[in-house]
Amino acid sequence: MLGHLLKPECEELIRKKDWESLRIAFEEVDPADIAEILEDLPPEDSGLIFRILPRNVAGVAFEYLPIDQQTEIVQTLGSEQLKNVLNEMAPDDRTRLFEELPAEVTKRALEQLSADELRVARTLLGYPEDTAGRYMTPEYMALRPTMTAREAIDAIRKYGKGRETLNVLYIIDDRSELRADLRLSELVMADPDAKVGDLPTRQLVAIPATASKDEVISTFEKYDRVALPVTDSKGAMVGIITADDVLDVAAEQATEDIQKLGGLEALEAPYMEISTFEMLRKRGGWLAILLLGGMLTATAMGTFQNELLRAEVLALFLPLIIASGGNSGSQATSLIIRALALREIQLGDWWKVALRELRSGALLGVGLAAIGFLRVVAWEWLHRHGVLSHGYGEHYLLVALTVSVSLVGVVLIGAMIGSMLPFVLRRLGLDPAAASAPFVATIVDVTGIVIYFTVAAFILKTTLLAK
Amino acid sequence: MLGHLLKPECEELIRKKDWESLRIAFEEVDPADIAEILEDLPPEDSGLIFRILPRNVAGVAFEYLPIDQQTEIVQTLGSEQLKNVLNEMAPDDRTRLFEELPAEVTKRALEQLSADELRVARTLLGYPEDTAGRYMTPEYMALRPTMTAREAIDAIRKYGKGRETLNVLYIIDDRSELRADLRLSELVMADPDAKVGDLPTRQLVAIPATASKDEVISTFEKYDRVALPVTDSKGAMVGIITADDVLDVAAEQATEDIQKLGGLEALEAPYMEISTFEMLRKRGGWLAILLLGGMLTATAMGTFQNELLRAEVLALFLPLIIASGGNSGSQATSLIIRALALREIQLGDWWKVALRELRSGALLGVGLAAIGFLRVVAWEWLHRHGVLSHGYGEHYLLVALTVSVSLVGVVLIGAMIGSMLPFVLRRLGLDPAAASAPFVATIVDVTGIVIYFTVAAFILKTTLLAK
Repeated sequence: MLGHLLKPECEELIRKKDWESLRIAFEEVDPADIAEILEDLPPEDSGLIFRILPRNVAGVAFEYLPIDQQTEIVQTLGSEQLKNVLNEMAPDDRTRLFEELPAEVTKRALEQLSADELRVARTLLGYPEDTAGRYMTPEYMALRPTMTAREAIDAIRKYGKGRETLNVLYIIDDRSELRADLRLSELVMADPDAKVGDLPTRQLVAIPATASKDEVISTFEKYDRVALPVTDSKGAMVGIITADDVLDVAAEQATEDIQKLGGLEALEAPYMEISTFEMLRKRGGWLAILLLGGMLTATAMGTFQNELLRAEVLALFLPLIIASGGNSGSQATSLIIRALALREIQLGDWWKVALRELRSGALLGVGLAAIGFLRVVAWEWLHRHGVLSHGYGEHYLLVALTVSVSLVGVVLIGAMIGSMLPFVLRRLGLDPAAASAPFVATIVDVTGIVIYFTVAAFILKTTLLAK
Repeated sequence: MLGHLLKPECEELIRKKDWESLRIAFEEVDPADIAEILEDLPPEDSGLIFRILPRNVAGVAFEYLPIDQQTEIVQTLGSEQLKNVLNEMAPDDRTRLFEELPAEVTKRALEQLSADELRVARTLLGYPEDTAGRYMTPEYMALRPTMTAREAIDAIRKYGKGRETLNVLYIIDDRSELRADLRLSELVMADPDAKVGDLPTRQLVAIPATASKDEVISTFEKYDRVALPVTDSKGAMVGIITADDVLDVAAEQATEDIQKLGGLEALEAPYMEISTFEMLRKRGGWLAILLLGGMLTATAMGTFQNELLRAEVLALFLPLIIASGGNSGSQATSLIIRALALREIQLGDWWKVALRELRSGALLGVGLAAIGFLRVVAWEWLHRHGVLSHGYGEHYLLVALTVSVSLVGVVLIGAMIGSMLPFVLRRLGLDPAAASAPFVATIVDVTGIVIYFTVAAFILKTTLLAK
């Protein structure tokens, strides 16, 4: 967009130290696009740019920057600039910044706030991380039920400037209890002499300040509102959350879930910006745990060493068998993690899910078993007709049967483990999204080895595994 | 919430056929909550409820229902009710419904629309699936630049009723070109005699009607607006998209990406509602493809049969080695798929990503190699001290070395394949999200077997694999 077109010119002007032209060039640009330009500049240069931007533009552009760049810039700004930027930021964005700053920088930053702003920041910071209280802004417009529509509009004209949203107004009684919300458009269309409290309103939907990130997202998805009020335990209104902020929170949540499903801890910054050390920490931890868990496969294999020695043909199909179990488990776990996140299913639904997966797993297993059987028979046929050099020996039909029966077993077990693990984790109070595809695959690998060799011992006991 | 409290009472009233009490009970309930109650009822009962709901409530509640239940209900409604429901629905939701309906039902449904509504539905249906054109609604409020603020507010009072949003108004010139957007709150706060065209406005951001789902989502994430205008190739405004609709689209997109990452085709309905046949189709296709691909592991194993026969200890660590490669690949692919979806990285960044993954993969591989080495040595020590019955023989140090070197190789290759596959898919014009964890694992499995036995052949050629 615009940002990309401007970037080379802008870098040219910075090189020439032509601040006046830069200031003019930025006048017409949306703060979101200025932020996009700043993102790619080294922190020193972004600091310079902040100095030439008009106060309020600097504040808004700053809000659009990724959180890790905000922390970097905050540490390079002088007190005066820091004060300007912080005072211009929306309270909810400022709260998120404070969460990320090192303690000593937070202290310095809090000192820069006006008394009012400080009170606001403290209120927001009082709620636990990842709850509605952290995402709300107290910059909403409240109305008394006894005002007329005309008085309400006059109040908005007088006090509305700078509020996060005026699209929805909140009718609050004397005891600061939230009575109703009213769209600005309805107020504009109402009879100017009608009492605000008497205007017809929608059902009131409010989010408790302690609601989790998931609850906030799903309430917005359910009710399709542009903003929702946040209330404390006594029903008093403490702030609002707007739909555009929820969009950011939902995107963040989806990123976390996808990264966890891939088998790593969620990153706190975009892929290209994270340090190598951080990257190793987020990935190495899980890789090491999975490796240690995966060592059980070596132990399981060890107990079947005799079978392996007598029928080395079994080793050929081992990777195939355990991979199929892992694939089936990975499918099931991704389905269930997402359904739990979207609240399509609840903890108590585990047995309904188990029944569905039992059926799906068994049917999928039978399908794969048929393919596996045909594959072994076809290869043997090709071998006997001189096309392939290796064959599976005289008992190839029994080998094919072993592979098939094992496939039914591992696909079924994969579906069961993959679908139940997220429930188990949630039941234990952990995040179901931690049931990653690699985690499920590791558990299924061990089980798959046991199933395969047990089936083989049974089917091949009088032939390949005789004696 | 409210819905859950009411449900038992409501079912009781349906059983008693007490329609009058039901009608009264529903009067105070938000349509979103009515939809929640309807969701759990059999289609016949939902049909009955629609008959007693006031016209406009029925339409809104219907919009909140999941798309598959909407299609079911549409097929049970009489012409009169169908007409009411369709005419009350927002055009964008109606478009999504039409996409899902069987052709003959679509035809019947289109016939129920008024001439104006039909024109709107046809316009929306003219844009390709998953583009901005399909998500927009033409129900916005346009203003002429020559109007005064007072005239504009009068126009809203007169014509605003029923528009999807009045929070943002659009200033359109004589040639229906979009000039600017204006928040209703700014209009309310403006001097009543000021010309609308002269009011200060934000930079205009518009979405082309052909923009993809991803582009729509990322534009909303970037600009934090409650609604954005949609324009055709000539810059004429054709509709708006609102943030709450984008929230639904983004959630849908994240669900698809998570399910694809898990190795299945994205489901078109919630987990508990999808039919067994559909479930098997979405999962079975990929499982079969992965099984066929995984058969290459058996082929790869076949070429190393001699090594396996001479050093069966190698088989013990095989599942561990290939699983580690798969885990590393699964991490890398989930990172890259998400970064591509969020536009944090572009197609041209592939070589930067390759460099990062080369470094991360090598370092992670070395870390895992150290753990693997210690594991083999520790087990052998325990065996020699009588704790474990199985040992790895006199050449256990060489075995440990083989396992370690192979781990470095497979973890590195896993990171490279996992990160590059999404780029390759996008380059081929396919969806990068199809690079699922199981898909990557299958490719890495085959590579891992080759790496492992090649390393073993080299390290053990004078000892275990001699002759």
